Order: sequence, then C-alpha cells, then structure tokens
Amino acid sequence: MVRILTKENVTQLLTMPDALEYVEEAYKQLSLGNALVPQRIAITDPAPGLTLIMPGIIGGEMNALATKIVSVYKQNPDRYNMPTVLAKVMVQDINTGDIVGIMDGSLITAMRTGAATGVSVKYLARKNSTTMGIYSAGVQARKQVSAVFWGLNEKLEKCKVYDLKKEVADGFKKELENELGIEIEIVNSGDDLLTDTDIIVAATTSTTPLFSGDKVSEGTHISSIGAHAPEARELDSVIIKRASLLTAGLKEACLAEAGDYIIPINEGVIRENDIISIGGIINGNISGRTSDSEITIFKSVGISAQDVAVGKLVYDRALKDGIGQDIDF
Amino acid sequence: MVRILTKENVTQLLTMPDALEYVEEAYKQLSLGNALVPQRIAITDPAPGLTLIMPGIIGGEMNALATKIVSVYKQNPDRYNMPTVLAKVMVQDINTGDIVGIMDGSLITAMRTGAATGVSVKYLARKNSTTMGIYSAGVQARKQVSAVFWGLNEKLEKCKVYDLKKEVADGFKKELENELGIEIEIVNSGDDLLTDTDIIVAATTSTTPLFSGDKVSEGTHISSIGAHAPEARELDSVIIKRASLLTAGLKEACLAEAGDYIIPINEGVIRENDIISIGGIINGNISGRTSDSEITIFKSVGISAQDVAVGKLVYDRALKDGIGQDIDF
Repeated sequence: MVRILTKENVTQLLTMPDALEYVEEAYKQLSLGNALVPQRIAITDPAPGLTLIMPGIIGGEMNALATKIVSVYKQNPDRYNMPTVLAKVMVQDINTGDIVGIMDGSLITAMRTGAATGVSVKYLARKNSTTMGIYSAGVQARKQVSAVFWGLNEKLEKCKVYDLKKEVADGFKKELENELGIEIEIVNSGDDLLTDTDIIVAATTSTTPLFSGDKVSEGTHISSIGAHAPEARELDSVIIKRASLLTAGLKEACLAEAGDYIIPINEGVIRENDIISIGGIINGNISGRTSDSEITIFKSVGISAQDVAVGKLVYDRALKDGIGQDIDF
Repeated sequence: MVRILTKENVTQLLTMPDALEYVEEAYKQLSLGNALVPQRIAITDPAPGLTLIMPGIIGGEMNALATKIVSVYKQNPDRYNMPTVLAKVMVQDINTGDIVGIMDGSLITAMRTGAATGVSVKYLARKNSTTMGIYSAGVQARKQVSAVFWGLNEKLEKCKVYDLKKEVADGFKKELENELGIEIEIVNSGDDLLTDTDIIVAATTSTTPLFSGDKVSEGTHISSIGAHAPEARELDSVIIKRASLLTAGLKEACLAEAGDYIIPINEGVIRENDIISIGGIINGNISGRTSDSEITIFKSVGISAQDVAVGKLVYDRALKDGIGQDIDF
C-alpha cells in the first residue's frame, strides 16, 4: 500500500517547528555516522533540463529511507506554464524496502532548506537575537524567515528584506507580517541589511558576493543557502576570514560544491579543517558560539538527508492524521 | 497528472516482443552515445537490506527519462510474507522533468532481463537455432525462455531445463508449454543441457561456473544473466577463451561487475578489448556471428537503460490503451 500525498496534503501536514526538529536530528545522525548521503546523480543531456536523484538513509530513532527526484527545467514557465522546479519524494519502509509513501516534494524542498538555517540559528546565533536581514524575497526566502522565527523560539521581532523586484518584496511583507506577526521592512540597498540585524540570511541566485564582509557587525550570525557551485558564492573572503566559526550542513558537501568556502580555501584565507559540520555542535562534540562578539557562518548546499528526514516526517504525520490516499500497486 | 500503474496493469500492458524492441533500441542509443547510464547508487546500512537507485536517460526517438528504485531484502518472505525483490519505476517527461508515470517494477525487471537475452539471440545465435537449455527454472528463467522464443521469431521448438528443485521445474514446464507451445524437457544434470542445444542460458544465483567450457558444442550461443559481482561467475575461463565473440549489454558495466569477464581478464585469458557492447553489433559498426561454428557469448549485469526503455514502453501503452489511474499531485 502506497500513501499518495498531494501538494495540498503536504502543506496541511508540514509545519516549520517539526521540520526544524527533523532536520536537526538528520544532522545529528549524520555526525554520529548513523546516516548515509550518497553523492547525488545529475542527469542532463539529452534532456533540456537537469534532474537530480537524491537518495539517503538515516538510522537512529528516525529510521528513514527515501529518495527525492527533483528536476530544474528553466524553460518550463514560458514554454509549458509549469514550475521550473518539480520534485517528488519516495519514502521506503526501512525494514522491508517497500516504497510506502510518494509525495509532492516542492514544499519539502523549501521547508528543509529553511529548516537548515533555522537549526543553525538555534545553535549559533546570539541568544538575545531579535532582528534579521535577508537577501531575496522569493519563495525560498519566505521559508527562511519562518525558520529563523522558530529557530529563535518565536523571539524574532523584525526582518529587513532586500529584493530588486518591488512587487515580490511587497508580497513577502504582506505574507510574513500576516503569518508570523513580525515587522517587515523593505530596504533599498543590500548594505541596509547589515546594520541593526542580529542574523543575516543569503538566499539568492547570485554567483558573486552580496556584500563587503568588513561592513558586518560583530556578533552577527550569517546563513547562506544560495550559491551551490564551486565557482559561485554569496559571501566574500573577508567575512569568511572574520568569522570565528565556519559551519556546514555537511562539510564534505560544501567542500565539493560551495564556492563560499572553496574559493577562500584556494586563496589560502582558510583551510579545509576550519570547516565543521553543524552536527558536531548539535552532538556537543564541538563547542558552538562562545561570546556575543563572534561572527558565525553557516553554509548549506542541500543534502538528501534533509529531504529524507522531512519526507519521513510528512509520511508519519499523514498516517497518524489519516491524510492522503492509499493505492495498492 | 501522474499515471499510476499496478502490477496487474503492467502485466496487461507489457509483452515480450515489445520489450525486445525497446531494449534493443536502448542498447543502440547507448552505443550511439545518445543515452546515459549513471553508476547506480547502492544503499544498505543501517537498513537490513539493499536498495539500488537506477536512473537513466535515452534520447533518439525514444526520449525516455526514468529511475527504478529496487530493493532486495532477503528476510522479507520469512519475516513479513513479502517478496525479496520490490521495485517501482518513476517515468519523467523528458521535456519538462515532471514525473508522469509511477509503476510497479517487478515484472519490468524480469522482462527487461529476459529481453536482453532475446536481443542477444536475435543478433548472435545461429539463424537455424531451434533448441535451448537453461540453468534454473525460476521466475527470471521463465522470462528468459520467452525472450529466446521471440528473439528467434517463434522458431524455438524445445527447451531443456535443469533445476535442483523438482516442483519448480514442474511448474516451469507446465507454464511454458502452455504459454509458448514448445516442448520442455526436465533434465537431471547440468551437463545434459550442453548437448543438442543451440542456445544456452544461465540464469542462476550461482557464484561459481555451472559447466565445463570444453563440453559446449561448436556454434552455440550462450547468455549469462546471473552472477553480477566481480568475484562471481556462471561461465568458466575455458568457454570464455573458446568463444569468438564476447559481448555485453554494456561493456563498462560488465567490466565493473561481471566476474565472468573480470576473472579471465585477470588470469590473462582475454583482454578488456575483447569485450564489446552489443549495441555496436545492433548498429552495424561491429560484425556479429560470421559462421555456424563460432561460439558466441552475451553477458548482462542489468543496467538502468533497460528499465528506462521498458518503463517508457509501459507508460506509452498505458496512455494509448487508457489503462491505470491518474492522480494529480
């Protein structure tokens, strides 16, 4: 029996606090060597777009085994009136191997990407943080703010946002003021995000640094979830050098894909050993922030363990709440 | 919209002649460099079984993009009264990346494995072949005989079968005499298969050679679809040395996984360059059998392109015949 969950079902079932908890557990199990994230498979030519096949397994109490198939076809909106990014998650029973749940993966992708930032905020931001700034007002960015809100235990009071598209920023403000009850300020330059903000989030499609690292205030926590190619980055080498903690969702994944770390390593500004997986901090094996003046950085390129964890969460909730449709095939 | 196809739907839609045609086309496109078979991902620990993630893409007129997720859990029958092997195939629209079909993959696996042998028989067996012998009477073996029957254009008259389990051999005889209208002879030793047979198929779980290569008659075509680990093989080095044509479903896959070729290469009996992908013969770039006295060998370890092709075939037929259930998610 396969539980089929539509986008509406997933929306109904998935909350950010739950996503945070599951992604935190995924990072923890990864760090304990109790989870496996194989190198994802990328398929392009002769297709006109990219498909990523992302399987993973997480042991411990989660016992989750799943695969996300996500496609990125840039011509979809113009040519077919369809989204660029399409995704589905197949959840297997870890005890039998049987595929027991198949669900829309678009919200899962946005929520697990948000949750990564949320977990980093929980462990690395100053405890008295109440303000943030975010580069981009897009769909991903909105989930980032929600994740920071929950990562701070609902103590987020204000978010500044910078986006070149005014109508997108307006939609962001309206949606999040309504959803989270916080103040949203639309600013006119990227640098305006750097003052009076405890947390900075970069969630853009930019391939070059968004700001000068020397303008960032002491004590800031920064999360970058945009750029994910060795030659692309949202953060410059200055801020990487100033930070006292350089963390990653998964160190190996960032060393393979994140220009934010790869470029300063190649420049000799930092060494590979300066990067740590956040799971080590969650486990308590590595100490996190030790003072209110430190700058901390979290970089995530997205790994299957996040999808596996959140896919399992949605599946479990669906069974518990009786949501979705069972098909025997 | 996703077309969901149950095992019964797939059984209704999938015939061996069609599977042969599609697998042949897959081999052809692979050989033309117009298809991609990424290294499959294997996931085990901390699960109690193995999951293989097998995506692939085939261009040309087929335009197929799909992923098979297949699990092999040996404890399933005893512990959960479920099959050891479970599989599903996710078919994507190559133009949009959207997953448009999800189907049971167990019959597809058996049929595409059979079809590989059928294609080899079409191109490599003597044109006047009418008899075969097969090691194993199991589920896979039955599809192998069906594939040889269709690969020979229905000219197969007789099949000898050897299996240690008498009741399995009896079931094999009953099923195939009924299905194909050919004579089935159950023999008492493996060597009995080697006389008066034009084609020999090895479809066992054995990890050591099934017969002495010096006992094989001139002119025989052999297909081995069992052993698929570097240290395991169904064929000995003698028969590999005697054969004038050593073919593979995909040379690279066999050089990575097929002890039947890897062991004699390591022994210095043959060289890597002696192995050819059958697609080259299908394309006409490499000549096949040139005399009735040659021994020809085909080895297949199973590659995603076979599943992708047959998955696409089933999906296309389902749309055409209005079979299955559409779900919007």
